[in-house]
This record gives sequence, structure tokens and C-alpha cells, in this order.
Amino acid sequence: MIQYLTTHPWKIVEEGFQQKHQRSSESIFSIGNGRFGQRANHEENYSGATLQGSYVAGIYYPDKTRVGWWKNGYPEYFAKVLNSVNWIGIRVWIDGEELDLATCTVNQFRRELDMKGGWLLRTFDATLLSGKQVRVAAHRFCSLADDETASIRYSVTPTNFSGNIRFEAYLDSDVSNHDSNYDEKFWEPISSSAAPSSGFVAARTKKTAFDVAAGMQLSATINGQRIEPQFSFSHRDFFAENTFEYSVSEGQTITLEKYIGLVSSLNYEKETLSEAALNAAKRAASIGFDAMLAAQENAWANIWQLADIQIAGDDEAQQAIRFNIFQLNQTYTGEDARLNIGPKGFTGEKYGGSTYWDTEAYCIPFYMSTKPQQVARQLLVYRYNQLGKAIENAAKLGFTDGAALYPMVTMNGEECHNEWEITFEEIHRNGAIAFAICNYIRYTGDKAYLAEFGIDVLVGIARFWSQRVHWSDAKNMYVMHGVTGPNEYENNINNNWYTSYIACWCLKYCMEALQYVEQTHADAYQTKVATMKLDREAECSRWQHICDNMYFGVKEGTNIFLQQDGFLDKELRPASSLNAAERPINQHWSWDRILRSCFIKQADVLQGIYLFEEDFSEATIKDNFDFYEPMTVHESSLSPCVHSILAAKLGYEEKAYEMYMRTSRLDLDDYNHEAHEGLHITSMAGTWMSIVQGFGGMRIVNDELQFHPMLPKKWKGYSFKVLFRGEVKTCAVGEI
Amino acid sequence: MIQYLTTHPWKIVEEGFQQKHQRSSESIFSIGNGRFGQRANHEENYSGATLQGSYVAGIYYPDKTRVGWWKNGYPEYFAKVLNSVNWIGIRVWIDGEELDLATCTVNQFRRELDMKGGWLLRTFDATLLSGKQVRVAAHRFCSLADDETASIRYSVTPTNFSGNIRFEAYLDSDVSNHDSNYDEKFWEPISSSAAPSSGFVAARTKKTAFDVAAGMQLSATINGQRIEPQFSFSHRDFFAENTFEYSVSEGQTITLEKYIGLVSSLNYEKETLSEAALNAAKRAASIGFDAMLAAQENAWANIWQLADIQIAGDDEAQQAIRFNIFQLNQTYTGEDARLNIGPKGFTGEKYGGSTYWDTEAYCIPFYMSTKPQQVARQLLVYRYNQLGKAIENAAKLGFTDGAALYPMVTMNGEECHNEWEITFEEIHRNGAIAFAICNYIRYTGDKAYLAEFGIDVLVGIARFWSQRVHWSDAKNMYVMHGVTGPNEYENNINNNWYTSYIACWCLKYCMEALQYVEQTHADAYQTKVATMKLDREAECSRWQHICDNMYFGVKEGTNIFLQQDGFLDKELRPASSLNAAERPINQHWSWDRILRSCFIKQADVLQGIYLFEEDFSEATIKDNFDFYEPMTVHESSLSPCVHSILAAKLGYEEKAYEMYMRTSRLDLDDYNHEAHEGLHITSMAGTWMSIVQGFGGMRIVNDELQFHPMLPKKWKGYSFKVLFRGEVKTCAVGEI
Repeated sequence: MIQYLTTHPWKIVEEGFQQKHQRSSESIFSIGNGRFGQRANHEENYSGATLQGSYVAGIYYPDKTRVGWWKNGYPEYFAKVLNSVNWIGIRVWIDGEELDLATCTVNQFRRELDMKGGWLLRTFDATLLSGKQVRVAAHRFCSLADDETASIRYSVTPTNFSGNIRFEAYLDSDVSNHDSNYDEKFWEPISSSAAPSSGFVAARTKKTAFDVAAGMQLSATINGQRIEPQFSFSHRDFFAENTFEYSVSEGQTITLEKYIGLVSSLNYEKETLSEAALNAAKRAASIGFDAMLAAQENAWANIWQLADIQIAGDDEAQQAIRFNIFQLNQTYTGEDARLNIGPKGFTGEKYGGSTYWDTEAYCIPFYMSTKPQQVARQLLVYRYNQLGKAIENAAKLGFTDGAALYPMVTMNGEECHNEWEITFEEIHRNGAIAFAICNYIRYTGDKAYLAEFGIDVLVGIARFWSQRVHWSDAKNMYVMHGVTGPNEYENNINNNWYTSYIACWCLKYCMEALQYVEQTHADAYQTKVATMKLDREAECSRWQHICDNMYFGVKEGTNIFLQQDGFLDKELRPASSLNAAERPINQHWSWDRILRSCFIKQADVLQGIYLFEEDFSEATIKDNFDFYEPMTVHESSLSPCVHSILAAKLGYEEKAYEMYMRTSRLDLDDYNHEAHEGLHITSMAGTWMSIVQGFGGMRIVNDELQFHPMLPKKWKGYSFKVLFRGEVKTCAVGEI
Repeated sequence: MIQYLTTHPWKIVEEGFQQKHQRSSESIFSIGNGRFGQRANHEENYSGATLQGSYVAGIYYPDKTRVGWWKNGYPEYFAKVLNSVNWIGIRVWIDGEELDLATCTVNQFRRELDMKGGWLLRTFDATLLSGKQVRVAAHRFCSLADDETASIRYSVTPTNFSGNIRFEAYLDSDVSNHDSNYDEKFWEPISSSAAPSSGFVAARTKKTAFDVAAGMQLSATINGQRIEPQFSFSHRDFFAENTFEYSVSEGQTITLEKYIGLVSSLNYEKETLSEAALNAAKRAASIGFDAMLAAQENAWANIWQLADIQIAGDDEAQQAIRFNIFQLNQTYTGEDARLNIGPKGFTGEKYGGSTYWDTEAYCIPFYMSTKPQQVARQLLVYRYNQLGKAIENAAKLGFTDGAALYPMVTMNGEECHNEWEITFEEIHRNGAIAFAICNYIRYTGDKAYLAEFGIDVLVGIARFWSQRVHWSDAKNMYVMHGVTGPNEYENNINNNWYTSYIACWCLKYCMEALQYVEQTHADAYQTKVATMKLDREAECSRWQHICDNMYFGVKEGTNIFLQQDGFLDKELRPASSLNAAERPINQHWSWDRILRSCFIKQADVLQGIYLFEEDFSEATIKDNFDFYEPMTVHESSLSPCVHSILAAKLGYEEKAYEMYMRTSRLDLDDYNHEAHEGLHITSMAGTWMSIVQGFGGMRIVNDELQFHPMLPKKWKGYSFKVLFRGEVKTCAVGEI
């Protein structure tokens, strides 16, 4: 754990500037509006360690695959989340001396992310090498109200001298990705232009040919009074700038306002893109910073009205849940059906791709309860639209007859991950995609979804499982070999309980769904059967035979499900017996050692018990939790939330609280020493589930919403709202 | 299979030029002398598909590791076998028109590798686009008698015109590796020079700073009469050339002789290297092509005197065994203790590294029987010298207290492979290294080797196994999890019978060796114990406990050893049931499908039965062979030889013959469609074993050499010799 942030119920605050935390802070203080987002890089030049990051939703680059040893079936490329145009840049010179926090003395540094209002403010006093002191305030946000715009208000006050302050406000598309496989440049220049107080740049991604254009419009004040400085402007490939210099007296404040328009060819014809960017910037400028900020705060107030979770008596917990909800809303607003929820959102470039099983297993419940039903439905349709690619993907691996394997990581439906033990074997993702359909219908009652879109996806997935298992003469049962479960610290294992369980569930649910569609949507049923070339009798008969004869390992004499064949042959010991210096083990142990150990990266058997809770007795849930939880090292962000929910159900209040704090403060307290790479966005939805499904005990039973709340000892009370079938339901516990 | 070569007992012959076979022929017709080697690239310019390859023993480049996803313990680099200076180059112009076999019409093309004499001859008639016809003969060899030299005799005869023939003879170090990870250049220029009829170039490898210099000396004749043409010469970085032009009448033959000196900083001070190269070239020139060729044939006659295997009545078999023996002798002569036997020798750049477990498991028996004892001993000492690195390597993976894990692939003792399932898990290689010590002593009687070098290696390896197994409470036995056996079509499996068996054997043999050294070399024993910090009582007691309580899977009610846990749960079917279009499966199936299948890449249980034959009854050997052999697809070059030997032992004459042909003609008939990448050098020693240990039934029993020969039906007879403890022993069977 690395803790350096101040606790506050509505804000994330960093007091004092420490260069070693800069990259982590850049992640944590990221801002975004669902359409684009920006790490908390400094506006002014910074020569210290930094990861520059400006991301535009849906814009990616197919980076040529880098592997040591090629395997048949590997994809040709990995879809990288692209670092895009730098629109925040404002260089500052004080009497010719450049302001750079890496080289001057910094006092009174404060960075503040206001989650209630959706803005970022950074203030500091800097003493330059010359001894000159300035006070700086940099205030910015990505507008939710007008999601093509952003605004920056950047103020400098000389505090011990009078002198010339020079600003250079620029747009720069000549950026690169830190994690490029072959140090390639991903962008090529399209056009750029500058005029007094304005400019734009447009650049195009290589291969994918996405265009992104940014426009800027500038204005300035002295002590709040508008001034009309003499702008010098220039542009070149990738770059446009405006500079001006002003004589400022000691104690006066000079302020530059930089209004940004940022648009992409996802939403505009390429020919009109630069104009659209410039127009958006002008629109923002005409509204002005203060009015835009008011609109921003208003938009966030609307979000918080439904989405807020209040916790009394525990500011750390309160701050953390709001941080999680805030980041989710910055990442995905549900307004564009082509987008999904990237694991790092707009906060870093690691992992790449936009869509993982995280969306179905973790994010859909959050969006289902805090947004109109349409948003979750849209996320399901996203997968429906990619069914053809999933069938192609399965065919590459030797599956036939319409079997579908959804990719582990994707941007456009094509697989782009390339580790055989994940790409080819972590196939439980297919199960989560089917489960989400069921989960959505259970929550919304929208059963008609099955007839319109759901059944195609369910049949494709059922066909996959049907081919992926095989009959074992030795066991006289079906088995599933060569898989990697959610616990990625086991690879290429046989009979992973979770994968086999969800596979059988998929087969059963698909058969039920077919029956439902046949009975209620006869025409659609006939069309679908014909399109899918479904031989229902033969296929369902095999599926039923698999469900009736699937092998599941159980620890003899107990009701503990075996994570995989041979698990009990391991040296079983609790994670608490590990030396602190060895943790996280994935940063200290060789891979074979991790694989041979009993240590569990994230909920695996317990993930299945969480999803299918109603299938198991409380004793079974308890016994499995007691067996597996102590061996779990939670080195995946997706782990603590599931444990928190199960612990709450079992009345393990302390464990539930510990796991809640771990999931909710994972990045704020940097449990796994990786916040500098970006935030764990998708698991933040798991944090939300820890309260709503965990402490709140929310369940849907027979079309009804139920709460079975518990109150953690450290809290005085808590309350939250969910939207359920058009109605807002409130759960309030204790003093709140 | 791809068959296009002519059968001949002493020659490899290609009749007719087919561009599609060029890269395969470049591999198959490679020449070398243990110090350097050269693919059969054309001397003249060739614009068709080609893999240029000139290799100098011991010269490598640490190419930065390329993996998609880094794992702790991966090496920083992969030691690449370097494509080195092009010394064969001779460009040819006919009245200004360049000779290029890709663009002219080729008739009477014949390529001939004379294995008896160790030379390569290529002859052809070419009709250029102008209609002019020339006859060309290119004759070359890498000298064994003077292994710093090579010679080329290149003749051109105009057959339908008189005209100007221009030669450009050059040396070019500006070469690259086809398999560079990041398209880096591996060489930088050092010096170059040219003078009339001579020149040199020297280049240095980046990072490793090996220098390689080549010198050339030229002379020319018309119809065999020496001429003194006017040479134009030039040089630049990486490059030196001499050109001359001559007016040749129809039917006259103009011949260029190019004498090469090729040396490296392994054998010379860097300052003297260019001079040494030029001196070597001059030395060769002063001897002359014919006298050098006579010396070459003499040197090869000396090799063949002992190493030849004669087969009567089956020219395909005869040609093949000589090809295997020939290539082994071209690759490794045993004269330099720093060198080892790379899997592709001097015939290609794939795989990289020079030392695999192939050396111990396959090559040592060949060199032990066909070279003085010193050569095999030197190969063992090579590993002794790298023990420190093997201990470091094990420490990187978390092993302690002097445990040694030898690398999967190495050039200098450091691991350079980077697939976790191989690098960290294919640990049976350690067993082969220990076994080779035993095998060497059994063959030579040189037990003193244990006290001098062997015991250190054995203890390091025993300590590794002792830490690599763990106690299973569930089984109440020791188990070994997370390994990859010789059959690389199974990864990360538990209780691989072969690995566990050889591990226990290592522990037992180490304990015996300690006892022997203590009893016979008391002083050495004391020193070693102190150096190794050996707590003999405690360590041996654990080793014994492991040997007494190791888990080995057996198929119930049979004596079939289970390749791994869960093997019988697979769908078991013979390789003969595979569709021909799917083979080799590693070129058609996705990796997970291969892993889930029962198909075996190469001998695994059978490898153990082969090595420890005396531990098993004939019935056990037979039952295991009958069980596993049908599922084996032999997609490793190391597979058929072991099956051939066991089949011969079991009297399965047809299978033994089939497997012999497959191992011996693997590259000549290109069974696995990969000859273009280079030859399978190390498995060629396995081919030799197929005859000597297989058909010949050679065994050492109680310090005595025995033969138990059988005669394949297709053969009239065969004979071979082996050197055993200073004496030449002959095995002759049938009519020979």
C-alpha cells in the first residue's frame, strides 16, 4: 500500500508535490466525459517522469503482435488504446525562465479532484532558480454537458517581483504510446492551422485511418479583467500554437483560458472534422469558463442524484466509493453503442482493447442500476453485433457449425490477445457473456430481448461448449481439458470447476431460452432456427447429455468444489504465511512457482458460487469460502469485491469490510503498486456491487427487488438508490 | 514429404533447377568444417527467394527478448546464431548482362554434394534474356585440413557466342539475420581494404563485440592457363571487391579461383585479425585449388575410415546415414572446448543458441563412438564450466543453496529461451546432463571424471530436484507439478513420468557418485564437500526419502506408465486416424487443441524407457511401446530415432525400418516441411544411434561392448565401426 492522499468525502486531494508519486497521481486525478479523457499531466512543461495520456473513445491502433514464439490462431495485432493529441499544453516562461516543476522549488502544492463537480484544480507556489516566485492555479474539466469540449483556466501571479510572463498554448498530435510493440509512430499528420488566439491540428491513425482533430480558442485576463494581448501564432505538421507575453506587476494575476474542441471521425465526416473541432472550441469560448463549469457541476449533480452512495462515519470508505462511481461515469456514459468499458478507461494505455469479460461480469450490474435500462441493453447488443466475429474466432481454433468464442480482449470483435493460455484457454469469458443476458432479463424483465438478439448469442455459445468438452472413457463422463479459469495463476488445467459449471449453465439456459422464444415469438423462432441452421432435437439432446454427465471434482467427504484436477495435491497454505517482501507474488516469483503454488489470483470457485448463489446451500457457500479465501492473494482487481459480497452474505463482517476497503481503495491506496499505469476502471463496478449486493444484500427474487442489509461496525449508516424497472428504490441503513 | 533429390550412396544430387526448392537445397547442400559453414547459396547474384547464411562457430548476438507478456525470470536476450560475412559472392556479367538464375533459362542444372570428399559442385547451362548461352561450374569447400580457409573455383564457358565476361568477387559483411527480433543490424564495420586480386573486411558484433574478418585472394585461368587480368578494386565499410573483365571466345572456359581466409576474435587478437584473414587466404592461394581439394578429400577419408556405416541393398538408406554422419562432422569436430552442437549447425539461423539437451541425450553417444574419448569428455566439461551460471539461473526461479538448473537454450551458460512452459518447466534437460556423465563413464570407464568434474554437476542437479518436488498430503507421496516433458505437446502438467523418473535416477546416481568419490578420492572429496557446503547426511537422507516415496502414475491393472496425471481422461486415438491434410498438426491446429489431444510430439515415456532400458522387463517395454507409439506424431526430429531403437529391440522390424527412414531422411525428404529453415543437426546423431544401438543392438554391459544385431528385410547387410576404450570394434551383418 502506498498512501499519500488526503481523505475527504467528496474530493481526492494531494497536498505537497512529490515527484515519485507524479505518475500515480496522473492516473488517479484523470478526468473524462465518456467521449474523451485525460491523465492529470501538468499543463506546463515537465521534465520529470510522466506518462502523457490523452485518449479518445473508440480510437485505436492495431499494433503488430509481438510474441517470441508464434502459435497457430494468434491474432496479427493487438488493438492499442491510443495516446492522442495533447490539448492541455501551456508552456510558461517567467522573464524568460521556463516554469517546470521538476526543476523549481514547489510549495503549497495542492491537487484537488472535485468529484461532486467533475473538475480538477492544481495550485502551487513555485520558486524558480532565479529566486522569482509565482503562484499558479490550473483548473480544468472535460465537459459532460457538451462532450466535444474541455476548458482550462491557467493563472499565474508573481509574488515577489514584477516581470514578463509568457504563455505558449499549443495543440500537439506528435505523440507516441509508451507501450508500442515496435516503437512505431501510430499517427500521421493531416492538417494544422493557427490564427491569433486560435488553432487546430488533425491527425490520422496509421492502418485504421481514424481522424482526430482538436481546436483551441484562447482568451486572457489580468485580475479578472479581459485583456487583448498580441498573439504570435504558428503551426506545422501535428502542431499549432499561440504565444503572448505580458508585463505583470507583483501581486497581479494573469490568466489564460484555453477552450478545447475535440472530435473524431467516429462522429464527423473527415472533411469537416477540423472545422468541427474549431467550432466546438469557439462554442466553449463563447459560453465562457464559469458558465461551462456551472453546466459541468449541474451535469454531475444529475448523475449523483441517482448514483451516489452515502456512508456515514467512515470518510475513507465514503471517499472511495464516490471515487469508483465517479471514474465509471467518466469512462462510459452509455450514449454511444459503439463504445465499451476499457479496463483502464481514459487513465492509461496498458492492456489495450476496450472490451473484456469485465463488462458482463462486473459493469453491467452497475449500469443497469444507475442508468436507464437501455444502457445495459446496449452493452448486450454490442456483443450481439460481434457474434459473426466470435464465430470466425472459434473457427480459427478448429470449432465448426456456428460455435462462437468471444475474444478475451477486443476493440471491434476480433481477438487481439496473444498468450495461448489466455487467448485459447481462458474461455469462461463466453459464460459471462451468456450470464449477462440472463442477469439483464432478471433485473429488467425484458424477456423479449431473447427473441430479438439474445438467442443467437446463446446458441453460438452453447455450440462452443458442446464442442469444447469431450467424453472421457476413463471417467465415463464429460470433461473439459486445457482451460484457464478466472484464477489466472493456474494455466492449462483440466476440469476447472467454474468453467465447467458455467458451461453447463449456458447449455441449460440456452435450452430454456429456445423454448421460451418458440412459445412466445413463433415467427422469430422459425427465422432464427433457419438462420442458425439449428437442429434443435439433436443439438439439445447432446447439450442435455452433457449437463447430465459432466464431471465436477469435489473434495471427498465435503461439499468443497475442486478448483481443478489435482488441486488437493498442492502444498496448501494460507496467503498469510507468505513473507510480506514476496508480495504481490506476481512481481517477485517466477511463473512456474506461482503456477505450482496453491495461491489464487482472484475468485474462481467463489466466482461461480457468487454468480449462481441460489444453486448452493449456505453451508456449501461457507465451506468453499472458508477453504479458498485464505489462499487468495487478490492480485487481480476483480477479486476483493466478490469476496466482500460473499463475506457479507455469510456474516463475516470484518472480512467483508476488509475486502470492501481493498476493492474500493485499490488505486487510491495503490495496493498492487501499479496505479502509475492507470486505474482499474472495470473493477470499480465490483466495488459498487460490494455495497449494493454485499452490505445492502440486494437480490432480485421472482421479479422483485429485495435488500438484506448489514451494517459494518465502522459505519454509522449508509444509503444508496437503484433504478429498478423504472422506479427508484432506496436502501438506507443506520444513521444517515 | 517432399522428394526431389537423386539417390546415390555417396552423394546428394539435385538435377534440374526448381526455384521453389532453392531454400531447402541451400540447407541440404550446406558445407562446413566445424569452424565455419555456409548454406548452399549461389555465388552469383540471385534475385529469387533465398536465405543467405554464413556462420562462424561461437559468434552470436544477444538479441533483445521479444515477448508479448513478460514473466519474472525471463532472460533479457536470446543468443542468435549470426549470419556473418558473405565470402562466396561472385557477380558475373556476360557482355554487360548479369547472370541471375531467377531471370534466365536454366538447363542441365546439377547440384552435387560429395560427402566422401567434402565438396559442393554446381553446374548448369544458362540462356540469358539476350539469347547468349553460358555453361557454368561452381566448385567449393570449407577446408577441414586448414579450417581457417575455403576455396571456390568458378568457371564460365560461352557456348553460342564470343564476348566479354566480367567477374566481381567480393566480401560483404553488411548482412542481416532473417529472424532478428526488432530488425536490428547485428554488425558494425571495423575495417576493409582491397588491392589488386585481394581484399579483406572485418566487422564487429554489436553488444558482444566479437570480430570476424574475411580475406580473399583471387586468380584466374583461361582453359586452365593462368592469366593476369587487370583487376579493378575498391572497398568501403563492410565491403571489399575486385572486378575484371575478359574477352572469351566461344567454347573457351574462363575460371576464377577465390581463396578465402576466415577468422574470428575467438582465436586471434583483434588487432591482428584482418592480417590473419588475409594471410590465410594467401596460404590457400599458394597451395592452390587442386592441392587443397586433395587435402580436403584426405581429411574426409580419415573421418570416414571410422565413422562410415555401410548398408548394402538400400541406396536410400545408405545415402541417408552418410548424410547424417557427414553433417555432424561438418558441424562439430571436437577441437574447440568452447563450442557445442547447435540444433541447426551451420545450415540456418532458426532457434539460436548452440547448446540444448540434444547434446547430452543424442550427440554424446555419436561422438563417443566415432572420436577419441577426449571429445565427449570435453562436451561434459563444457557443462561443468557453466555450473555457476546454472546455479544463478535456478536462483532466478527461487531455488536456493546451490541448486542448479541448466538452461534450455544457451550460448554461454545463460538461459536465453523465453516461453514459460519451456524455460521454467521443461526441466528434464537437467536429467539428461546428469545421465550423460553416467553414460560417458559407462562407455569409457573414466570413473575418475566424477572426482574431477562430475560430482559438482551431479550435486547441483540433485539439489534442484530435491527442491522441485513437493510432498502431497493428499497422495502421501512426493509429486512434481508444473512441468513440460520431452513431449512438448503437453504443457504445465503434473507428474510427468519421464521427468520424475529421471529426477529420482539423478538423486540415486548422485548418492552413488558421492560414495565413490569419498572412497577413491578422499582429498578431492573433502575439498568438494567444503566447496559445495554439502551436508551429506541431511541432504542424502532427503534425497533417499524422495526416491522411496515418489509418485509414479500407472494405468490400473497394467504396466503402462502414465505420461502425466489425467492422460487417460483424454480421447485416445491413433495418429493414423488423423486426416493427412491436418499434418503436421503443429502447422494446422491451434495450440489448445494440440494440448488437449492425446498426440505425442516425441518420445516421452518411451524416452525414459530407452535411457533406462535395463530397469524394465521386455513385457513392460513392449506394452508401453504398443500404447504410446501409435499416438506419436513425430513432429520433433528427436522422436523417430528412439522409436526405431525400441522397435528394433522388440523385434518390430517394419516399424524400426520405417522410423529409421524417417529419422535418417527427415531433411532429405523434408517430412515436416521445414528443411528450408535449416537442417536438424542434433537429431542426426539419433539417426546414427538407430543403426548402432537399434539394428546393431550395441550395449555396454559390465564394461563390455555387445552387439545384438538384426537385419532389416530391405537390406542385404550393413557394417559399422565404433571406437571403444581405444579399440576399433566392428559390427558387420549380412552380405557386406
